[in-house]
Amino acid sequence: MSEDTFGEWFNRLLLEAEIMDPRYPVKGLCVWLPYGMELRERVLSVMRGLLRETGHREVLFPLLIPEDFFRKEGEHIRGFENQVYWVTRGGGEELDVKLVLRPTSETSMYPMFSLWIRSHADLPLKVFQVVSVFRYETKMTKPMIRMREVTTFKEAHTVHSSREEAEEQVREAVSLYSRFFDRLCVPYLITRRPSWDTFAGAEYSLAFDTLLPDGRMLQIGTVHYLGQNFSRVFDIRFQKPDGTHEYAYQTCYGISERVVAALLVLHADEVGPCLPPSLAPIQVVIVPIPFKGEREPETYSEEVRGRLEGKFRVVLDSRDLRPGNKFYYWERRGVPIRLEVGPREASSRTVTLVRRDRRERREVPLEGLEEALSGTMREMEEEMRKRARERMEGRMREVSSLEEAGRIIGEGGAARVPLCGEGCARRVEEETGAQVLGEEVGGKEGACVLCGRPGRIFVVGRSY
Amino acid sequence: MSEDTFGEWFNRLLLEAEIMDPRYPVKGLCVWLPYGMELRERVLSVMRGLLRETGHREVLFPLLIPEDFFRKEGEHIRGFENQVYWVTRGGGEELDVKLVLRPTSETSMYPMFSLWIRSHADLPLKVFQVVSVFRYETKMTKPMIRMREVTTFKEAHTVHSSREEAEEQVREAVSLYSRFFDRLCVPYLITRRPSWDTFAGAEYSLAFDTLLPDGRMLQIGTVHYLGQNFSRVFDIRFQKPDGTHEYAYQTCYGISERVVAALLVLHADEVGPCLPPSLAPIQVVIVPIPFKGEREPETYSEEVRGRLEGKFRVVLDSRDLRPGNKFYYWERRGVPIRLEVGPREASSRTVTLVRRDRRERREVPLEGLEEALSGTMREMEEEMRKRARERMEGRMREVSSLEEAGRIIGEGGAARVPLCGEGCARRVEEETGAQVLGEEVGGKEGACVLCGRPGRIFVVGRSY
Repeated sequence: MSEDTFGEWFNRLLLEAEIMDPRYPVKGLCVWLPYGMELRERVLSVMRGLLRETGHREVLFPLLIPEDFFRKEGEHIRGFENQVYWVTRGGGEELDVKLVLRPTSETSMYPMFSLWIRSHADLPLKVFQVVSVFRYETKMTKPMIRMREVTTFKEAHTVHSSREEAEEQVREAVSLYSRFFDRLCVPYLITRRPSWDTFAGAEYSLAFDTLLPDGRMLQIGTVHYLGQNFSRVFDIRFQKPDGTHEYAYQTCYGISERVVAALLVLHADEVGPCLPPSLAPIQVVIVPIPFKGEREPETYSEEVRGRLEGKFRVVLDSRDLRPGNKFYYWERRGVPIRLEVGPREASSRTVTLVRRDRRERREVPLEGLEEALSGTMREMEEEMRKRARERMEGRMREVSSLEEAGRIIGEGGAARVPLCGEGCARRVEEETGAQVLGEEVGGKEGACVLCGRPGRIFVVGRSY
Repeated sequence: MSEDTFGEWFNRLLLEAEIMDPRYPVKGLCVWLPYGMELRERVLSVMRGLLRETGHREVLFPLLIPEDFFRKEGEHIRGFENQVYWVTRGGGEELDVKLVLRPTSETSMYPMFSLWIRSHADLPLKVFQVVSVFRYETKMTKPMIRMREVTTFKEAHTVHSSREEAEEQVREAVSLYSRFFDRLCVPYLITRRPSWDTFAGAEYSLAFDTLLPDGRMLQIGTVHYLGQNFSRVFDIRFQKPDGTHEYAYQTCYGISERVVAALLVLHADEVGPCLPPSLAPIQVVIVPIPFKGEREPETYSEEVRGRLEGKFRVVLDSRDLRPGNKFYYWERRGVPIRLEVGPREASSRTVTLVRRDRRERREVPLEGLEEALSGTMREMEEEMRKRARERMEGRMREVSSLEEAGRIIGEGGAARVPLCGEGCARRVEEETGAQVLGEEVGGKEGACVLCGRPGRIFVVGRSY
């Protein structure tokens, strides 16, 4: 799918599935619609569950960061100053101290961490928040993918008493995000970002990317090891058991609504998305198929609904519309399972179960329908996860030359390219016009495609 | 309690109970701490439940409003322009169109409503969102009560096809908020705001106020009937069944984190708050009382915890601290019930149950502890609700002269004053230095204390 086709298709999908309305009158800002909000809430609740299980606690910091705090960490400000929004006036007055709309929250959180942390007994500190962040994007914006207001930014920040513990936290974050994306049926690659492209202020960064239908890699999560960069600047020190003081070691990691974009487009067909059953706001829709004015299908549909209610998120669509219109209506919203109930089903006490992903139909007895549904949903979610993973892997190839890499990328895929380091990586970017996302974590060794020296696998693709 | 004493006490309470940290380096901005976030989440979940039951659906609109939309409704802009924050720069550039940080969302939502609503079949529309709103307050700020970033603003907006239906919605909102405040054990007065003090752009406004320990009335909720004021400006029209078009009728209503402030201070003593059991993040704390190194209390405490877990939000405090310190620690956090478990309790298979509000102790058998706890919590919550209501009513008096009103207000209460209308109401404000909050809804008639003409009861008090 070309970039333009994808953009139009995705905008239409969002609006027709009632996820998001991209027509807000400011570039890069969108409105979450009720059904989209329910999906968002379920996605966030998976994330919150994983974070709480691993000892992270939720906080909420202010949006506005005073200029002097924002400017404290030199690298950080250089990374962000071209894309922050500035609040310069309040009421009729010019503000004495200009305020930044947070592009991310290091500089609002860390001055407070410095008040909270006194001793090693206060560590580790593991907090997260779910907030809007703002980036003054000058490139073309796209709903959920490149926004000026990112309305769903989950950022976690941790503080530790040693480098080892902080790096262990980086591994915990990677494992936690991996489980999160698995739950969402979103396949991913993990790379260590190249040194010239780490997060502003980090010692190193790991990134999760997934491949979208338009052939671009979408970064859906990042994990940063900050070392003592920020703790020195914001004076986050702790007293050790021996009475001496040391600057703390920090990490931070984030995901955004981009994961919602990925979960929508990776399981969509020409009609609309197919939501993983465990996340779908509506899991089952019952559509009565009337026949020559018989009332049986209607009353039987009610019975089916009554049976499933409280066990599944179920809707009985008894509107005065033709069944075909109803099918289309719910398919566009990605409802994973449809039950058709006509006179035949009513008399045989069965339902016709239709899976949204494969549009497969089968008759299922009413007796034991709950188990059949649970089983189908589990199966369906596993298949969705696997299919998406295979589709991504099918569009990636390990290559042994630059030409081959260019070809794969041109065909809408991404290449695994053995490279020796920054010099050759930069040349690859220049010659392919694509980006070196980073060294694949867990990837093997190989001879650099450009100079033949020993290298490692880097992922190269077009990125957002 | 004087205003200063109250302010200091409240700041200390918030920090010690780990609700909010007021030390953020910008005036009027605070940090929600993890325990505070849990309480906030429970309060919001009561609100969301009530809204969903009554057919409201959650949405999320952008924070940034372009200047031209913000300026469309004349009254509205006059009401807010002295207190909005302006975003004037993005990156290094001056913005072509300045952006306002929403002080409330009418002007961001209603242009979209105009796209969504075409026909009477699209009505009623009932949506809400929970967001941050921004007010450039120049007066003294106070955590949760007067903030520059109000981090928990629940605003509902509805659209209807007739004035009658919209005014019926106003009544639904009043009933819904009443139930909400009842659930929070926060007593309230409902007034119709005086015409010179309605919401900017509303035809009329109703307000909920509660009386704080410093003798000030805190407005904790408002409900506005907007009529067609905004629909005319934002072109929200619908086609009627007869094919003609009409401008829609609107309402909006909001509450903020001020209710959390109220629920904290209205049930607090010198040590800290007492949280209503149904809202408390931790409902029960078990404190083992060790005796001469016996291990019995410890293992028995574990048994008690095991028994309650999953049924109550329970914590066993087995830290190496003296019991008295633990009592104090949990009382400062408002945990409603403490179970003390010593050798005596272990051998008699009982627990000593202590209610946070009355500090009453009684022995309860382990067998049936669940029922005893549920019963105690229900009772406690009812008593808290009733006590707070009585305390407020005890500080209010219906008066028959201005002097009497002044005296009541001077003693930290509020007066019910019969007044004939705006002229005399203004004089009351001038002479008492207090505010006329509005005409009490459901209040009776009486002769105006100033001119003797027929009047109605107005509530007069010092307000935030």
